[in-house]
Amino acid sequence: MPELRKDPITGRWVIISTDRAKRPTDFLRQSVEIKGIGICPFCYGHESKTPPEVLQYGRNGSGPNTPGWQVRVVPNKFPALGIEGGLDREGDGLFDRMNGVGAHEVVIETPVHSASLATLPVDAVADVLLAFRERMLDLKKDPRLEYVLVFKNHGEAAGASLEHPHSQLIATPIIPVMVAEELAGAARYYELKERCVWCDILRQERRGGRRAIVEAGGFVALAPFAPRFPFETWILPAVHRAAFEESGADELRGLAGLLGDFLRRMNRVLGDPPFNFMLHTAPLRDSELESFHWHLEVIPKLTSVAGFEWGSGFFINPMPPEDAAEALRADQS
Amino acid sequence: MPELRKDPITGRWVIISTDRAKRPTDFLRQSVEIKGIGICPFCYGHESKTPPEVLQYGRNGSGPNTPGWQVRVVPNKFPALGIEGGLDREGDGLFDRMNGVGAHEVVIETPVHSASLATLPVDAVADVLLAFRERMLDLKKDPRLEYVLVFKNHGEAAGASLEHPHSQLIATPIIPVMVAEELAGAARYYELKERCVWCDILRQERRGGRRAIVEAGGFVALAPFAPRFPFETWILPAVHRAAFEESGADELRGLAGLLGDFLRRMNRVLGDPPFNFMLHTAPLRDSELESFHWHLEVIPKLTSVAGFEWGSGFFINPMPPEDAAEALRADQS
Repeated sequence: MPELRKDPITGRWVIISTDRAKRPTDFLRQSVEIKGIGICPFCYGHESKTPPEVLQYGRNGSGPNTPGWQVRVVPNKFPALGIEGGLDREGDGLFDRMNGVGAHEVVIETPVHSASLATLPVDAVADVLLAFRERMLDLKKDPRLEYVLVFKNHGEAAGASLEHPHSQLIATPIIPVMVAEELAGAARYYELKERCVWCDILRQERRGGRRAIVEAGGFVALAPFAPRFPFETWILPAVHRAAFEESGADELRGLAGLLGDFLRRMNRVLGDPPFNFMLHTAPLRDSELESFHWHLEVIPKLTSVAGFEWGSGFFINPMPPEDAAEALRADQS
Repeated sequence: MPELRKDPITGRWVIISTDRAKRPTDFLRQSVEIKGIGICPFCYGHESKTPPEVLQYGRNGSGPNTPGWQVRVVPNKFPALGIEGGLDREGDGLFDRMNGVGAHEVVIETPVHSASLATLPVDAVADVLLAFRERMLDLKKDPRLEYVLVFKNHGEAAGASLEHPHSQLIATPIIPVMVAEELAGAARYYELKERCVWCDILRQERRGGRRAIVEAGGFVALAPFAPRFPFETWILPAVHRAAFEESGADELRGLAGLLGDFLRRMNRVLGDPPFNFMLHTAPLRDSELESFHWHLEVIPKLTSVAGFEWGSGFFINPMPPEDAAEALRADQS
């Protein structure tokens, strides 16, 4: 009998098809391969192929937009939102629109085309996280912006158009609906219990839950109770923290260690799958929330989303999270 | 400057990147090809390869699960939900689960492996729609079920695992969240205006809106104001109707004509793209709603959904719906 499970934060139901349950090896599909063909605009020497950098770490001496950097942040050459202008809300009959004001930046994580967050040294991963923090703190100064979403598309099947290791951030003048739903659900839970729902989940999973994967450096990786996707994983601080951008450098180093560990487990168990991650943090103007706990959602791209999911919002997940967590936890290579 | 647009029903914002706007030919990608390799469980003579049929049209004389049918409905061999048992809601610490009770059926649309809803005669398409209606009316008798979602995955990239023309339906014990959001948004609109929001959209678009595509037989195809996907199209009855399953045979024949016309336009403009459609109708127990207007959402699979969309719920659509509607409207082949 398949099982319907409800996410305690959003109230979203998912179908866990325990009957059709699969082994991790059933999901081995296309590994991400770095081909290194053509001219890469993110490699050393091609700095002029991107818009001028807004942040870099590691360059010593030479001028901006030259080699030598270890992490480099540039505006997206084809931005989804534009940084100029006012919001200019207006109606059009019964419809509403506003200017697409926002920021869209690319965090080039390393100069090494064939590296990845799974293979970089922990200090290099920590620098990427510091760059996320620094850009968020800078964008927070712009009063038009309400939210910064940091995300990563790794591999063509997960939407990456360039293979050089990079993440992105998009700052929006509206709180994204996925975050708004989490905020609302978490606020309802807090109203009822006077506790953060993620703190409660952490307590339950650490007290012998079957969905914890690994814990280290003040962070926990766990499989959520009602995951939309096989091997969906949440990484979150073990103690309550609402806003990612208020993390200390030590905390981010702890996260870097755990993130690398988790990605290596995922790569070994699932054979270097394409994946996305998305950072859910408190809104820029609401960074002290008692009810919201920031977390990084990692979703390997293993299944396809089709008519039923688009039409219903239900997700069918053929991998029970307990089995996914066990496979990732057991990995000892 | 990109534009943020708000869907008047769900309140969902999408980013229409008018700067990066593309021509229809930029979306020509992988056409769906019917290869016809291997043994197809949906072709004549292989009726025993599916679970026993629950409905068929067109067979004359011979017994059940034999050739001769024109439309055939069978339970899905690998159902996402199971038809046996009670709902059995239970808690697990702070989590909630219930039995995955429901139905999952396949509507085999034609015996002709290489046909499609775009190429079948209008009477054959009408029979498919009649089968949807008949199955919905039958499943409505089961008091455990709250909703029937009819959908179609066409082409491997849109999630189809078999190429023989078929649609599916999944009946659920819960109203799917996507439908619940539309119901709630439409109810808010109705409370304010005492009019159905879809009726208002239809009035606005037919009165010189730029997003109408084609109208015939009592049905309208239009591009929504805030589409998530390039060339997303809604097909809906021109007059208010809440529940699909209450359509008369004449109405369904009108829909069959318009649907075929629209799909042929889409195939010519976009080169036989993979696509999904999803039927949003009123809940089984609420078929008289003044605020809800049933509609069929068609989404060609042309772009990929990645970290930003999964993390934010915003969609970035590089095709303004006015341009999409114009291309589909202009097509005269």
